[in-house]
Amino acid sequence: MKHLLSIEDLSSEDIHHLIWKAEAIERGDAPEFTKKIFAANIFLEPSTRTKNSFVVAERRLGLDVLDISSEDSSLTKGESLYDTVKTLYTISASLCIVRHSQNGILREIANKVEVPIINAGDGTGQHPTQCLLDLYTIHQEFGTFEGLKVAIIGDIKHSRVARSNSEALRKLGAEVYFVSKPEWQDEGIAENYVSIDEAVELADVVMLLRIQHERHDHSSEDQNYLQSYGLTKERESRMNKNSIIMHPGPFNRGVEIDSDVVDSPKSRIFKQVANGVTMRMAIISELLKEEL
Amino acid sequence: MKHLLSIEDLSSEDIHHLIWKAEAIERGDAPEFTKKIFAANIFLEPSTRTKNSFVVAERRLGLDVLDISSEDSSLTKGESLYDTVKTLYTISASLCIVRHSQNGILREIANKVEVPIINAGDGTGQHPTQCLLDLYTIHQEFGTFEGLKVAIIGDIKHSRVARSNSEALRKLGAEVYFVSKPEWQDEGIAENYVSIDEAVELADVVMLLRIQHERHDHSSEDQNYLQSYGLTKERESRMNKNSIIMHPGPFNRGVEIDSDVVDSPKSRIFKQVANGVTMRMAIISELLKEEL
Amino acid sequence: MKHLLSIEDLSSEDIHHLIWKAEAIERGDAPEFTKKIFAANIFLEPSTRTKNSFVVAERRLGLDVLDISSEDSSLTKGESLYDTVKTLYTISASLCIVRHSQNGILREIANKVEVPIINAGDGTGQHPTQCLLDLYTIHQEFGTFEGLKVAIIGDIKHSRVARSNSEALRKLGAEVYFVSKPEWQDEGIAENYVSIDEAVELADVVMLLRIQHERHDHSSEDQNYLQSYGLTKERESRMNKNSIIMHPGPFNRGVEIDSDVVDSPKSRIFKQVANGVTMRMAIISELLKEEL
Repeated sequence: MKHLLSIEDLSSEDIHHLIWKAEAIERGDAPEFTKKIFAANIFLEPSTRTKNSFVVAERRLGLDVLDISSEDSSLTKGESLYDTVKTLYTISASLCIVRHSQNGILREIANKVEVPIINAGDGTGQHPTQCLLDLYTIHQEFGTFEGLKVAIIGDIKHSRVARSNSEALRKLGAEVYFVSKPEWQDEGIAENYVSIDEAVELADVVMLLRIQHERHDHSSEDQNYLQSYGLTKERESRMNKNSIIMHPGPFNRGVEIDSDVVDSPKSRIFKQVANGVTMRMAIISELLKEEL
Repeated sequence: MKHLLSIEDLSSEDIHHLIWKAEAIERGDAPEFTKKIFAANIFLEPSTRTKNSFVVAERRLGLDVLDISSEDSSLTKGESLYDTVKTLYTISASLCIVRHSQNGILREIANKVEVPIINAGDGTGQHPTQCLLDLYTIHQEFGTFEGLKVAIIGDIKHSRVARSNSEALRKLGAEVYFVSKPEWQDEGIAENYVSIDEAVELADVVMLLRIQHERHDHSSEDQNYLQSYGLTKERESRMNKNSIIMHPGPFNRGVEIDSDVVDSPKSRIFKQVANGVTMRMAIISELLKEEL
Repeated sequence: MKHLLSIEDLSSEDIHHLIWKAEAIERGDAPEFTKKIFAANIFLEPSTRTKNSFVVAERRLGLDVLDISSEDSSLTKGESLYDTVKTLYTISASLCIVRHSQNGILREIANKVEVPIINAGDGTGQHPTQCLLDLYTIHQEFGTFEGLKVAIIGDIKHSRVARSNSEALRKLGAEVYFVSKPEWQDEGIAENYVSIDEAVELADVVMLLRIQHERHDHSSEDQNYLQSYGLTKERESRMNKNSIIMHPGPFNRGVEIDSDVVDSPKSRIFKQVANGVTMRMAIISELLKEEL
């Protein structure tokens, strides 16, 4: 593993290895880089949650952080991202974390640069560190993926994360179900659609997708969505005893999930946030293991 | 003291305790956090002076800093500040410093979150760390507040800092006088108005308020303000031998204060800036004392 | 040397001393500041390359960094830069690195402040740390400046860096030639103009200037520029065996330089980037040597 660009690049073994590393870090067995090593966080689109999760992961590993934001518009032009990465590598960056609006660009660059690149989210929805922290959260809970029933709920059509997460989950042995408004169903996935009410009763993992708030500016519509497709308190009460609720955040309380459910005992939403730091530490230390 | 939201929440004892801690730090007796502790600086409105004062205070105490700026507009919406703070706490922040345009929001959040919050300035003018550094500066000079005469000069009506500082000063035993243009006088404070010429002769502390530069775009008006209500060199020459000049900054040279007076021997304006770091170290180490 | 405002302020001895320090750092003999020392990076215009080069230099020396960006518009007003620098000095900055749109302002401030200032690029094109890293790169290659032939190629008229670099090079014993479109020739420099084809054959150092991309929005024009005045692969093939190619970056592949030539064996373009960190470490440790 030289880069982490897409969850699809990882085998089941790769994923289990990263989960194993994350578990070791969780137990307090984190590697520490004692040399002066710089990681460059190149966030060309805004992100509080992911960016600071990376910063904490980097600092806990003993890395020094270079912070490249989108202010400098010359960086947002696709043509120069390669030279930006090469320049940062030249001034010492041993790792580049990139959030960018275009996906193809990262894969194109990765072939040419010496420095490891982590995709921190791109325009078309690839977000492999989010996927890995989700998988880590599930594994932490159930100890296995074999035979687990996972329901992915939301805008399946426009969410590439739905598709890449479901492929990873199936590869690992889970059964995946989808819940979606008819107009958000993906034509490439013809089967396994269930209703939200079926989903909450069958699933071990109820995995909500983020709803773009822009599409829900009327509170009446929000209320309708919650009743028709969202995780209400009533639906939560019908979930299995050991099943859990996940959401990548940022969530819209009262839209796709009832506010009280966010903080309920079944919710692993903030556990996912904490696991994000741990899994990113695992990923970074894997990519930089020759520097240890 | 779990949070620091408003100077009004502090008793005289609390204030004296923080001044005592600041004095110890000034003498070189600063605590140092040896564990890896993160402080999140959430500045949703621009601030060079206050923000960097906090950064220096945090770094001197050995803390690691997460920098959350207003770029990510999702954070400026009131509804999500709670979830932002909770997310930052979840990824390791042991302290949140917040500058926000709304006051009520901080007090509302503070009841629900596990992490200590410091108000670094809000829309209605509460700025308790500024107030505490002012008090520290006065105490450093005179050793007591009992019987001190403090003249607060400027836009009393629109400055909540005038009111909260004056209440704190009175609680500590000082006498407070006000100087203001008639249209800037506060109806809630009916007494103790004096002229600028009376004020400079009676006061131990001449405390200027910041004038909003936006309201003074004509230099003739600036000149008029300086002559009628500002601290000119002539007025400075009539101050008592041991009296001092304070201003929270940023000041407008030639508007509320003559440029030469800013750097005069009676001015404690840059001493206040230096004391800001020391007092913030005292406040932070008080809020995090269980981490030591 | 208290400040570094312009390359013109440095004698040949000063320059050789800084090159000597950079060489020592390159060999691994870098000073390390063990006290807690803050450097303030005040970048009031965007810059990824220069800013991060300074950050890496500062961190490698063990300094702590304060990051002041242009967000806070009050800082972009000339009148307050003095007070900003004085405030940062008061809260602990031992060094201020300033990128600003106005040149005069830095020299004016420098006379009045206690803290060393480094000009990190200004409106009229002074950029002394860039000039010094260029000189270091040349010296690293040839061991001397005496008798070296340097061709400076590009918009001579609007580039003050062309003029100040050429003066520095001449002072150090090099011969300087210029290549420019007629409308970009500088009237103050009447002689030593040669064609691009003469330049590539005579020069030890082919020093390209950055072309403002804004002036070249038509790709046909870009192509014309490359053929008429740019460094094509054909021209590179006619350069002397030991001669080198330099460019301060960011470069426009296919405009002033063929993309392949950027990465050719004669190119020192990324070596300049790496040398930028080393030379800035030398400059900073020279300015702060009393803190060691």
